[in-house]
Amino acid sequence: MVPAATVQEQISYIRKGVAEIIREEDLAERLAQAENEGRPLRIKVGFDPTAPDLHLGHTVLIRKMKHFQDLGHTVFFVIGDMTGLIGDPTGRNITRPPMTREEIAANAETYKTQVFKILDPEKTEVRFNSSWLEPLNFVDIIRLCSRYTVARLLERDDFSKRFRDGTPISVHELLYPLAQAYDSVALRCDAELGGTDQKFNLLVGREIQRDFGQPPQIVVTTPLLEGLDGVEKMSKSKGNYVGIAEPPADMFKKLMSVSDDLMWRYYELLTDLSEADVAALRRRVAAGEVHPKTAKMDLARLIVAGFHSSSSAGEAAAEWQRVVAAGEIPADIATIRLDGGSIRIDKALARAGLASSVAEAVRKLKEGAVEIDGTRISGFIQLASPGQYVIRLGRHWKRLVV
Amino acid sequence: MVPAATVQEQISYIRKGVAEIIREEDLAERLAQAENEGRPLRIKVGFDPTAPDLHLGHTVLIRKMKHFQDLGHTVFFVIGDMTGLIGDPTGRNITRPPMTREEIAANAETYKTQVFKILDPEKTEVRFNSSWLEPLNFVDIIRLCSRYTVARLLERDDFSKRFRDGTPISVHELLYPLAQAYDSVALRCDAELGGTDQKFNLLVGREIQRDFGQPPQIVVTTPLLEGLDGVEKMSKSKGNYVGIAEPPADMFKKLMSVSDDLMWRYYELLTDLSEADVAALRRRVAAGEVHPKTAKMDLARLIVAGFHSSSSAGEAAAEWQRVVAAGEIPADIATIRLDGGSIRIDKALARAGLASSVAEAVRKLKEGAVEIDGTRISGFIQLASPGQYVIRLGRHWKRLVV
Repeated sequence: MVPAATVQEQISYIRKGVAEIIREEDLAERLAQAENEGRPLRIKVGFDPTAPDLHLGHTVLIRKMKHFQDLGHTVFFVIGDMTGLIGDPTGRNITRPPMTREEIAANAETYKTQVFKILDPEKTEVRFNSSWLEPLNFVDIIRLCSRYTVARLLERDDFSKRFRDGTPISVHELLYPLAQAYDSVALRCDAELGGTDQKFNLLVGREIQRDFGQPPQIVVTTPLLEGLDGVEKMSKSKGNYVGIAEPPADMFKKLMSVSDDLMWRYYELLTDLSEADVAALRRRVAAGEVHPKTAKMDLARLIVAGFHSSSSAGEAAAEWQRVVAAGEIPADIATIRLDGGSIRIDKALARAGLASSVAEAVRKLKEGAVEIDGTRISGFIQLASPGQYVIRLGRHWKRLVV
Repeated sequence: MVPAATVQEQISYIRKGVAEIIREEDLAERLAQAENEGRPLRIKVGFDPTAPDLHLGHTVLIRKMKHFQDLGHTVFFVIGDMTGLIGDPTGRNITRPPMTREEIAANAETYKTQVFKILDPEKTEVRFNSSWLEPLNFVDIIRLCSRYTVARLLERDDFSKRFRDGTPISVHELLYPLAQAYDSVALRCDAELGGTDQKFNLLVGREIQRDFGQPPQIVVTTPLLEGLDGVEKMSKSKGNYVGIAEPPADMFKKLMSVSDDLMWRYYELLTDLSEADVAALRRRVAAGEVHPKTAKMDLARLIVAGFHSSSSAGEAAAEWQRVVAAGEIPADIATIRLDGGSIRIDKALARAGLASSVAEAVRKLKEGAVEIDGTRISGFIQLASPGQYVIRLGRHWKRLVV
């Protein structure tokens, strides 16, 4: 919370870790104006209505929303349910069938559970864009569409590529950027946030607002977060992600695996620390006053605490240190050969002597005390034969050949 | 009326004077099918909602509608009032402000007065497309727009030229062809007629109907009519037109001015004579059995009778012959010099001795008996000084120098 921050302090906080502000001087002016009028800024962010399962990559944008909330502004969390209700009208895309209002409402609840780990529910207005798009009739839509040219829409990166390549663009696809722009009109937005890949659409919002006699919204884009590998963008499909619902110990361990360089990027994009504070810490690490590992553990603790609690972040840190202290895989690990083909993990634990009985093995699995090849497991997975598996149960390690 | 015509007879009648039928074999099939089902075909033609002032050029299309009526089919006269209610939403075109429902209704009445000179009111269904376009909501419009690609719309001649030249095309302009196509869906049309310049839009209708699970409409285009000069397309602005509300004598005189070649084109496009009948007449003229002037007078009489009556067509013919018999301008025409500057026509007639008094001049003017330089006039126009005017009142001619 930064109450009564000056315009310059606000801008400095907002600017941290964003890709672009269009334009910063407009933002300064709008902040000053809102202050004079004694009102908060109205900030819009649009989200897909599909079931969300967020990872840290998504939180960069959500955290920037939080920063506006920290400064006392109002954030509109807009769920683009209109497109969800339509689905893929061409029927070509079977993964986008129309959604029911019930499904959309359920997804909205899932969103809230996740994003309210970062956002302040009191300062978050959740809105469904169907509430203002659905009542539009033919005349309204013609008027909306008259405010933008085909050529300018086709300048959008993906459209221009498809148009050049002769890949069909259905006419309705041109309506979506205009509908999204109309969301800004309906909400009288002062600013819209989005990923850099949304920049074109956010700019359309500026022009459509101007056409409707509103001052054009300020556009703030956030960068795409690099995944744990530091190379590719964080994504589920690349496996280089940290899900925000993952257990503390897993989050912590994954975060500790990033490079020292990437650590600073994560400080910038995944925490609320000011640019000045991050810069100061970075100087201390460079000067040898703080060990990089200590800085990284602080980062991991900070992030884990945000999604869980300080105490579970502390436990995760302690657990991680225990494992590190124990060495990742002991050098003198014993190899045990189990004959008889594929075997379920609980039976394997008992036969390998890591558990005194199958019952104890089951209990340990349920406690989350069992790792196979470095990954914590809790289910009764099958060890396929032939195969080799490094199994850890607490401090005990075995290499099993099945 | 051609009751119980065979499919082949119907096609032969429809084919006369059309530019293109897409496709004739489909039309044959649809005619046979409708006959089996004991129903008439549903034929759509769309018209602008702006105030109509029709000339013979417009009647080519309307006459083709009549031919379908002659064959017992139902014609939908669709007034595109939706676009009229919108006007030019960009506001750039001040000549296209939105129209009120009252204006549109008044224009519809003007249309009826004019087109019912050709069409059978009993077999004409007048419809306003706002009645099915206005209730469309965002989802309906997205679905409609999803059925066509941007690239294909941009293939339309005027769009492709503007797109190439960088002349802005607003997104709403892409919606109009789709809306017009949707008219065909709403009316479940078997066929749509239009000028050759409408071909693209009529073809879009076929595809949208197919997408809505309807058999695609047959497209029938009519050619643009050459004006009296035989060179340019007939149009008000070129002055080479015959208005359908013009007095019989004027129509007759204008029609008699066309070339012998153009006469056959007018027979084809402006009468209900069958192709065979026109061909037979043409052969008789070529063989010297019928004088071309006789054929032309028959044509003029036929057309004038259609918009007025047989008797007034007969009078117009007689009047035309009187003038021709009298020679266009008598060789021995007397020149009278009127001093005193510009003078009103009624006073000039009296002073020139063409009328016995101003009162008689006024009466003659009202009777339409006065021509100045070959043009019939009825108002009190001013003869500007200095100037020369050839004046005719009935059989009497004078050249006036003012």
